[in-house]
Amino acid sequence: MARWQPDARGRLLRAAIDLFAEQGYDATTTAQIAARAGLTKTTFFRHFPDKREVLFFGQPVLVDLARTAARTAPSDGTPMDAVLAAVDAMTATAFDEQREYAPRLQEVVAANIELRERAVFKQAVIARAIADGLAERGVAEPTASLAADLGARAYHDGFDRWIEPGNTTGLPALARAALDELRAAAARLA
Amino acid sequence: MARWQPDARGRLLRAAIDLFAEQGYDATTTAQIAARAGLTKTTFFRHFPDKREVLFFGQPVLVDLARTAARTAPSDGTPMDAVLAAVDAMTATAFDEQREYAPRLQEVVAANIELRERAVFKQAVIARAIADGLAERGVAEPTASLAADLGARAYHDGFDRWIEPGNTTGLPALARAALDELRAAAARLA
Repeated sequence: MARWQPDARGRLLRAAIDLFAEQGYDATTTAQIAARAGLTKTTFFRHFPDKREVLFFGQPVLVDLARTAARTAPSDGTPMDAVLAAVDAMTATAFDEQREYAPRLQEVVAANIELRERAVFKQAVIARAIADGLAERGVAEPTASLAADLGARAYHDGFDRWIEPGNTTGLPALARAALDELRAAAARLA
Repeated sequence: MARWQPDARGRLLRAAIDLFAEQGYDATTTAQIAARAGLTKTTFFRHFPDKREVLFFGQPVLVDLARTAARTAPSDGTPMDAVLAAVDAMTATAFDEQREYAPRLQEVVAANIELRERAVFKQAVIARAIADGLAERGVAEPTASLAADLGARAYHDGFDRWIEPGNTTGLPALARAALDELRAAAARLA
Protein backbone atom coordinates (compact mmCIF):
# COMPACT_ATOMS: atom_id res chain seq x y z
CA MET A 1 0.00 0.00 0.00
CA ALA A 2 2.87 2.40 0.94
CA ARG A 3 2.25 6.14 0.61
CA TRP A 4 -0.64 7.27 -1.52
CA GLN A 5 0.32 7.76 -5.17
CA PRO A 6 -1.75 9.28 -7.97
CA ASP A 7 -1.47 5.89 -9.66
CA ALA A 8 -3.97 3.84 -11.59
CA ARG A 9 -5.14 1.79 -8.62
CA GLY A 10 -5.73 4.83 -6.45
CA ARG A 11 -7.51 6.69 -9.24
CA LEU A 12 -9.74 3.70 -9.91
CA LEU A 13 -10.56 3.39 -6.21
CA ARG A 14 -11.57 7.03 -5.89
CA ALA A 15 -13.58 6.90 -9.11
CA ALA A 16 -15.38 3.76 -7.91
CA ILE A 17 -16.25 5.27 -4.52
CA ASP A 18 -17.58 8.41 -6.23
CA LEU A 19 -19.71 6.48 -8.71
CA PHE A 20 -21.03 3.95 -6.20
CA ALA A 21 -22.07 6.83 -3.92
CA GLU A 22 -23.62 8.85 -6.74
CA GLN A 23 -25.56 6.21 -8.65
CA GLY A 24 -25.37 3.01 -6.59
CA TYR A 25 -23.14 -0.04 -6.77
CA ASP A 26 -25.36 -2.14 -9.03
CA ALA A 27 -25.83 0.62 -11.60
CA THR A 28 -22.10 1.29 -11.95
CA THR A 29 -20.04 -0.48 -14.62
CA THR A 30 -16.32 -1.11 -14.86
CA ALA A 31 -16.32 1.01 -18.04
CA GLN A 32 -17.75 3.96 -16.12
CA ILE A 33 -15.17 3.58 -13.35
CA ALA A 34 -12.33 3.46 -15.87
CA ALA A 35 -13.71 6.51 -17.72
CA ARG A 36 -14.12 8.53 -14.51
CA ALA A 37 -10.53 7.67 -13.59
CA GLY A 38 -9.35 8.78 -17.04
CA LEU A 39 -8.20 5.26 -17.87
CA THR A 40 -9.16 2.54 -20.33
CA LYS A 41 -11.18 -0.56 -19.51
CA THR A 42 -8.11 -2.61 -20.39
CA THR A 43 -6.15 -0.81 -17.71
CA PHE A 44 -8.98 -1.47 -15.26
CA PHE A 45 -8.79 -5.21 -15.86
CA ARG A 46 -5.01 -5.19 -15.56
CA HIS A 47 -5.52 -4.13 -11.95
CA PHE A 48 -8.81 -5.71 -10.85
CA PRO A 49 -10.94 -8.74 -11.80
CA ASP A 50 -14.21 -6.82 -11.26
CA LYS A 51 -15.72 -3.65 -9.82
CA ARG A 52 -16.13 -5.13 -6.36
CA GLU A 53 -12.45 -5.84 -5.84
CA VAL A 54 -11.55 -2.19 -6.38
CA LEU A 55 -12.89 -1.51 -2.89
CA PHE A 56 -10.70 -4.20 -1.30
CA PHE A 57 -7.46 -3.59 -3.11
CA GLY A 58 -5.33 -3.18 0.01
CA GLN A 59 -6.15 -6.65 1.31
CA PRO A 60 -3.37 -8.77 -0.26
CA VAL A 61 -0.73 -6.45 1.18
CA LEU A 62 -2.29 -6.56 4.65
CA VAL A 63 -2.56 -10.32 4.53
CA ASP A 64 1.10 -10.76 3.58
CA LEU A 65 2.29 -8.31 6.21
CA ALA A 66 0.19 -9.92 8.94
CA ARG A 67 1.29 -13.48 8.22
CA THR A 68 4.97 -12.54 7.92
CA ALA A 69 5.00 -10.44 11.07
CA ALA A 70 3.27 -13.14 13.12
CA ARG A 71 5.67 -15.79 11.85
CA THR A 72 8.88 -13.78 12.28
CA ALA A 73 8.20 -12.15 15.65
CA PRO A 74 10.92 -12.97 18.25
CA SER A 75 10.80 -16.67 19.05
CA ASP A 76 10.87 -16.11 22.82
CA GLY A 77 7.62 -14.11 22.71
CA THR A 78 4.10 -15.30 23.53
CA PRO A 79 1.42 -15.87 20.89
CA MET A 80 -0.07 -12.48 21.80
CA ASP A 81 3.33 -10.83 21.24
CA ALA A 82 3.27 -12.26 17.71
CA VAL A 83 -0.32 -11.02 17.23
CA LEU A 84 0.75 -7.55 18.34
CA ALA A 85 3.57 -7.66 15.79
CA ALA A 86 1.02 -8.55 13.09
CA VAL A 87 -1.29 -5.70 14.13
CA ASP A 88 1.63 -3.25 14.15
CA ALA A 89 2.71 -4.38 10.69
CA MET A 90 -0.79 -3.78 9.33
CA THR A 91 -1.32 -0.39 10.96
CA ALA A 92 2.08 0.84 9.77
CA THR A 93 0.61 0.92 6.24
CA ALA A 94 -1.99 3.59 7.12
CA PHE A 95 -1.78 6.87 5.25
CA ASP A 96 -3.65 10.15 5.56
CA GLU A 97 -5.71 10.04 2.37
CA GLN A 98 -6.98 6.58 3.35
CA ARG A 99 -8.52 8.14 6.44
CA GLU A 100 -10.27 10.73 4.30
CA TYR A 101 -11.94 8.35 1.87
CA ALA A 102 -12.57 5.45 4.28
CA PRO A 103 -15.86 6.79 5.71
CA ARG A 104 -17.31 7.13 2.20
CA LEU A 105 -16.03 3.68 1.30
CA GLN A 106 -17.71 2.24 4.43
CA GLU A 107 -21.01 3.90 3.48
CA VAL A 108 -20.89 2.26 0.06
CA VAL A 109 -20.13 -1.13 1.64
CA ALA A 110 -22.88 -0.77 4.26
CA ALA A 111 -25.49 -0.10 1.56
CA ASN A 112 -24.88 -3.37 -0.28
CA ILE A 113 -25.20 -6.90 1.09
CA GLU A 114 -22.68 -8.35 -1.38
CA LEU A 115 -20.10 -5.80 -0.29
CA ARG A 116 -20.86 -6.36 3.39
CA GLU A 117 -20.24 -10.08 2.90
CA ARG A 118 -16.97 -9.31 1.14
CA ALA A 119 -15.91 -7.02 4.01
CA VAL A 120 -16.62 -9.71 6.61
CA PHE A 121 -14.69 -12.18 4.47
CA LYS A 122 -11.77 -9.74 4.32
CA GLN A 123 -11.55 -9.68 8.11
CA ALA A 124 -11.70 -13.49 8.20
CA VAL A 125 -8.91 -13.74 5.62
CA ILE A 126 -6.72 -11.44 7.71
CA ALA A 127 -7.45 -13.55 10.80
CA ARG A 128 -6.57 -16.68 8.82
CA ALA A 129 -3.26 -15.13 7.76
CA ILE A 130 -2.31 -14.31 11.35
CA ALA A 131 -3.36 -17.82 12.42
CA ASP A 132 -1.17 -19.31 9.69
CA GLY A 133 1.76 -17.23 10.89
CA LEU A 134 1.16 -18.42 14.45
CA ALA A 135 0.88 -22.05 13.34
CA GLU A 136 4.25 -21.73 11.58
CA ARG A 137 5.78 -20.75 14.92
CA GLY A 138 4.20 -23.76 16.62
CA VAL A 139 1.10 -22.29 18.25
CA ALA A 140 -1.57 -25.00 18.48
CA GLU A 141 -5.28 -24.78 17.70
CA PRO A 142 -7.64 -23.39 18.82
CA THR A 143 -5.23 -20.93 20.49
CA ALA A 144 -3.81 -19.80 17.15
CA SER A 145 -7.21 -19.06 15.60
CA LEU A 146 -8.51 -17.35 18.71
CA ALA A 147 -5.43 -15.16 19.08
CA ALA A 148 -5.61 -14.34 15.38
CA ASP A 149 -9.27 -13.32 15.75
CA LEU A 150 -8.27 -10.88 18.49
CA GLY A 151 -5.66 -9.37 16.17
CA ALA A 152 -7.99 -9.02 13.18
CA ARG A 153 -10.70 -7.54 15.38
CA ALA A 154 -8.23 -5.11 16.98
CA TYR A 155 -7.14 -3.88 13.56
CA HIS A 156 -10.77 -3.47 12.52
CA ASP A 157 -11.89 -1.74 15.74
CA GLY A 158 -8.82 0.50 15.69
CA PHE A 159 -9.53 1.44 12.09
CA ASP A 160 -13.13 2.41 12.95
CA ARG A 161 -11.88 4.69 15.72
CA TRP A 162 -9.18 6.14 13.48
CA ILE A 163 -11.65 7.38 10.87
CA GLU A 164 -14.08 8.84 13.39
CA PRO A 165 -14.57 12.61 12.92
CA GLY A 166 -12.35 14.58 15.27
CA ASN A 167 -9.99 11.72 16.05
CA THR A 168 -6.37 12.88 16.28
CA THR A 169 -4.71 9.62 17.38
CA GLY A 170 -2.80 7.47 14.91
CA LEU A 171 -4.01 4.07 13.79
CA PRO A 172 -1.14 2.10 15.39
CA ALA A 173 -1.94 3.42 18.89
CA LEU A 174 -5.69 2.93 18.44
CA ALA A 175 -5.30 -0.67 17.28
CA ARG A 176 -2.94 -1.42 20.17
CA ALA A 177 -5.49 0.00 22.60
CA ALA A 178 -8.22 -2.12 21.01
CA LEU A 179 -6.04 -5.22 21.34
CA ASP A 180 -5.46 -4.45 25.04
CA GLU A 181 -9.22 -4.16 25.57
CA LEU A 182 -9.90 -7.44 23.77
CA ARG A 183 -7.29 -9.20 25.84
CA ALA A 184 -8.83 -7.85 29.05
CA ALA A 185 -12.25 -9.04 27.82
CA ALA A 186 -10.78 -12.49 27.13
CA ALA A 187 -9.44 -12.57 30.69
CA ARG A 188 -12.88 -11.75 32.11
CA LEU A 189 -14.48 -14.55 30.06
CA ALA A 190 -11.88 -17.17 30.94
CA MET B 1 -35.36 -26.72 10.96
CA ALA B 2 -36.99 -29.38 13.20
CA ARG B 3 -36.94 -32.99 11.98
CA TRP B 4 -36.21 -33.60 8.34
CA GLN B 5 -39.35 -33.59 6.19
CA PRO B 6 -39.70 -34.51 2.52
CA ASP B 7 -40.83 -30.92 1.98
CA ALA B 8 -40.10 -28.45 -0.77
CA ARG B 9 -37.15 -26.79 1.00
CA GLY B 10 -35.47 -30.09 1.75
CA ARG B 11 -36.02 -31.39 -1.76
CA LEU B 12 -34.63 -28.20 -3.26
CA LEU B 13 -31.59 -28.38 -1.00
CA ARG B 14 -30.78 -31.97 -1.97
CA ALA B 15 -31.36 -31.23 -5.65
CA ALA B 16 -29.07 -28.20 -5.45
CA ILE B 17 -26.27 -30.14 -3.74
CA ASP B 18 -26.53 -32.89 -6.35
CA LEU B 19 -26.46 -30.50 -9.29
CA PHE B 20 -23.69 -28.29 -7.91
CA ALA B 21 -21.57 -31.41 -7.32
CA GLU B 22 -22.33 -32.88 -10.76
CA GLN B 23 -21.98 -29.87 -13.03
CA GLY B 24 -20.63 -27.03 -10.89
CA TYR B 25 -22.27 -24.13 -9.11
CA ASP B 26 -21.97 -21.59 -11.91
CA ALA B 27 -23.43 -23.91 -14.54
CA THR B 28 -26.51 -24.75 -12.47
CA THR B 29 -29.72 -22.73 -12.84
CA THR B 30 -32.66 -22.31 -10.50
CA ALA B 31 -34.84 -23.93 -13.18
CA GLN B 32 -32.64 -27.04 -13.14
CA ILE B 33 -32.77 -27.23 -9.34
CA ALA B 34 -36.56 -26.93 -9.35
CA ALA B 35 -36.89 -29.57 -12.08
CA ARG B 36 -34.57 -32.01 -10.27
CA ALA B 37 -36.65 -31.53 -7.11
CA GLY B 38 -39.83 -32.17 -9.08
CA LEU B 39 -41.08 -28.65 -8.40
CA THR B 40 -41.82 -25.55 -10.44
CA LYS B 41 -39.60 -22.49 -10.67
CA THR B 42 -42.40 -20.53 -9.02
CA THR B 43 -42.20 -22.85 -6.02
CA PHE B 44 -38.45 -22.35 -5.95
CA PHE B 45 -38.80 -18.60 -5.71
CA ARG B 46 -41.46 -18.90 -3.02
CA HIS B 47 -38.75 -20.44 -0.84
CA PHE B 48 -35.47 -18.84 -1.91
CA PRO B 49 -34.34 -15.58 -3.54
CA ASP B 50 -31.62 -17.33 -5.58
CA LYS B 51 -29.69 -20.59 -5.97
CA ARG B 52 -27.03 -19.60 -3.47
CA GLU B 53 -29.44 -19.20 -0.57
CA VAL B 54 -30.67 -22.79 -0.93
CA LEU B 55 -27.41 -23.88 0.68
CA PHE B 56 -27.90 -21.61 3.70
CA PHE B 57 -31.55 -22.13 4.38
CA GLY B 58 -31.15 -23.11 8.03
CA GLN B 59 -29.49 -19.84 8.98
CA PRO B 60 -32.51 -17.67 9.94
CA VAL B 61 -33.67 -20.32 12.39
CA LEU B 62 -30.21 -20.64 13.96
CA VAL B 63 -29.89 -16.88 14.25
CA ASP B 64 -33.24 -16.52 16.02
CA LEU B 65 -32.55 -19.42 18.37
CA ALA B 66 -29.10 -18.11 19.26
CA ARG B 67 -30.21 -14.56 19.98
CA THR B 68 -33.24 -15.63 22.02
CA ALA B 69 -31.31 -18.18 24.07
CA ALA B 70 -28.52 -15.73 24.86
CA ARG B 71 -31.02 -13.06 25.90
CA THR B 72 -33.26 -15.30 28.02
CA ALA B 73 -30.63 -17.39 29.82
CA PRO B 74 -30.94 -17.12 33.65
CA SER B 75 -30.11 -13.57 34.71
CA ASP B 76 -27.72 -14.68 37.48
CA GLY B 77 -25.46 -16.45 34.95
CA THR B 78 -22.20 -15.18 33.44
CA PRO B 79 -21.88 -14.06 29.81
CA MET B 80 -20.34 -17.46 29.02
CA ASP B 81 -23.37 -19.21 30.57
CA ALA B 82 -25.54 -17.28 28.13
CA VAL B 83 -23.23 -18.21 25.26
CA LEU B 84 -23.50 -21.86 26.25
CA ALA B 85 -27.28 -21.54 26.21
CA ALA B 86 -27.08 -20.12 22.68
CA VAL B 87 -24.82 -22.95 21.52
CA ASP B 88 -27.13 -25.55 23.08
CA ALA B 89 -30.16 -23.98 21.39
CA MET B 90 -28.44 -24.17 17.99
CA THR B 91 -27.14 -27.71 18.36
CA ALA B 92 -30.57 -28.95 19.50
CA THR B 93 -31.76 -28.42 15.91
CA ALA B 94 -29.36 -31.04 14.47
CA PHE B 95 -30.92 -34.03 12.73
CA ASP B 96 -29.47 -37.20 11.24
CA GLU B 97 -29.99 -36.51 7.55
CA GLN B 98 -28.22 -33.15 7.96
CA ARG B 99 -25.14 -35.05 9.02
CA GLU B 100 -25.33 -37.18 5.89
CA TYR B 101 -25.54 -34.38 3.35
CA ALA B 102 -23.33 -31.83 5.17
CA PRO B 103 -19.97 -33.17 3.88
CA ARG B 104 -21.18 -32.89 0.29
CA LEU B 105 -22.56 -29.43 0.97
CA GLN B 106 -19.19 -28.37 2.40
CA GLU B 107 -17.39 -29.68 -0.70
CA VAL B 108 -19.63 -27.56 -2.91
CA VAL B 109 -19.01 -24.49 -0.75
CA ALA B 110 -15.24 -25.08 -0.65
CA ALA B 111 -15.06 -25.17 -4.45
CA ASN B 112 -16.58 -21.72 -4.95
CA ILE B 113 -15.24 -18.40 -3.63
CA GLU B 114 -18.68 -16.77 -3.59
CA LEU B 115 -20.06 -19.60 -1.46
CA ARG B 116 -17.04 -19.53 0.84
CA GLU B 117 -17.63 -15.84 1.43
CA ARG B 118 -21.29 -16.53 2.16
CA ALA B 119 -20.35 -19.27 4.65
CA VAL B 120 -17.96 -16.97 6.50
CA PHE B 121 -20.68 -14.33 6.54
CA LYS B 122 -23.10 -16.87 7.99
CA GLN B 123 -20.81 -17.52 10.93
CA ALA B 124 -20.43 -13.76 11.46
CA VAL B 125 -24.21 -13.30 11.41
CA ILE B 126 -24.61 -16.01 14.06
CA ALA B 127 -21.93 -14.35 16.19
CA ARG B 128 -23.71 -11.01 15.75
CA ALA B 129 -27.00 -12.58 16.91
CA ILE B 130 -25.40 -13.97 20.08
CA ALA B 131 -23.71 -10.61 20.72
CA ASP B 132 -27.08 -8.86 20.33
CA GLY B 133 -28.62 -11.26 22.86
CA LEU B 134 -25.75 -10.58 25.27
CA ALA B 135 -26.08 -6.81 24.80
CA GLU B 136 -29.78 -7.07 25.66
CA ARG B 137 -28.81 -8.59 29.00
CA GLY B 138 -26.33 -5.80 29.65
CA VAL B 139 -23.01 -7.32 28.61
CA ALA B 140 -20.70 -4.51 27.43
CA GLU B 141 -18.43 -4.39 24.39
CA PRO B 142 -16.00 -5.80 23.48
CA THR B 143 -16.84 -8.62 25.92
CA ALA B 144 -20.18 -9.34 24.21
CA SER B 145 -18.67 -9.63 20.72
CA LEU B 146 -15.74 -11.69 21.91
CA ALA B 147 -17.93 -14.10 23.89
CA ALA B 148 -20.26 -14.36 20.90
CA ASP B 149 -17.33 -15.20 18.63
CA LEU B 150 -16.42 -18.07 20.94
CA GLY B 151 -19.98 -19.37 20.72
CA ALA B 152 -20.20 -19.14 16.93
CA ARG B 153 -16.80 -20.78 16.57
CA ALA B 154 -17.74 -23.57 19.01
CA TYR B 155 -20.87 -24.32 16.99
CA HIS B 156 -18.83 -24.36 13.79
CA ASP B 157 -15.98 -26.48 15.19
CA GLY B 158 -18.45 -28.86 16.83
CA PHE B 159 -20.31 -29.22 13.55
CA ASP B 160 -17.10 -30.09 11.69
CA ARG B 161 -16.35 -32.83 14.21
CA TRP B 162 -19.92 -34.08 14.11
CA ILE B 163 -19.83 -34.78 10.38
CA GLU B 164 -16.42 -36.47 10.43
CA PRO B 165 -16.58 -40.08 9.21
CA GLY B 166 -16.82 -42.48 12.11
CA ASN B 167 -17.94 -39.93 14.66
CA THR B 168 -20.57 -41.31 17.03
CA THR B 169 -20.93 -38.35 19.40
CA GLY B 170 -23.87 -35.98 19.15
CA LEU B 171 -23.51 -32.37 18.02
CA PRO B 172 -24.52 -30.85 21.39
CA ALA B 173 -21.70 -32.63 23.26
CA LEU B 174 -19.14 -31.85 20.55
CA ALA B 175 -20.01 -28.14 20.48
CA ARG B 176 -19.85 -27.97 24.28
CA ALA B 177 -16.41 -29.59 24.20
CA ALA B 178 -15.29 -27.10 21.53
CA LEU B 179 -16.54 -24.22 23.68
CA ASP B 180 -14.59 -25.54 26.69
CA GLU B 181 -11.43 -25.71 24.58
CA LEU B 182 -11.93 -22.17 23.28
CA ARG B 183 -12.43 -20.89 26.79
CA ALA B 184 -9.25 -22.60 27.95
CA ALA B 185 -7.42 -21.06 25.00
CA ALA B 186 -8.77 -17.63 25.94
CA ALA B 187 -7.46 -18.15 29.48
CA ARG B 188 -3.99 -18.97 28.13
CA LEU B 189 -3.96 -15.83 26.00
CA ALA B 190 -5.20 -13.50 28.73
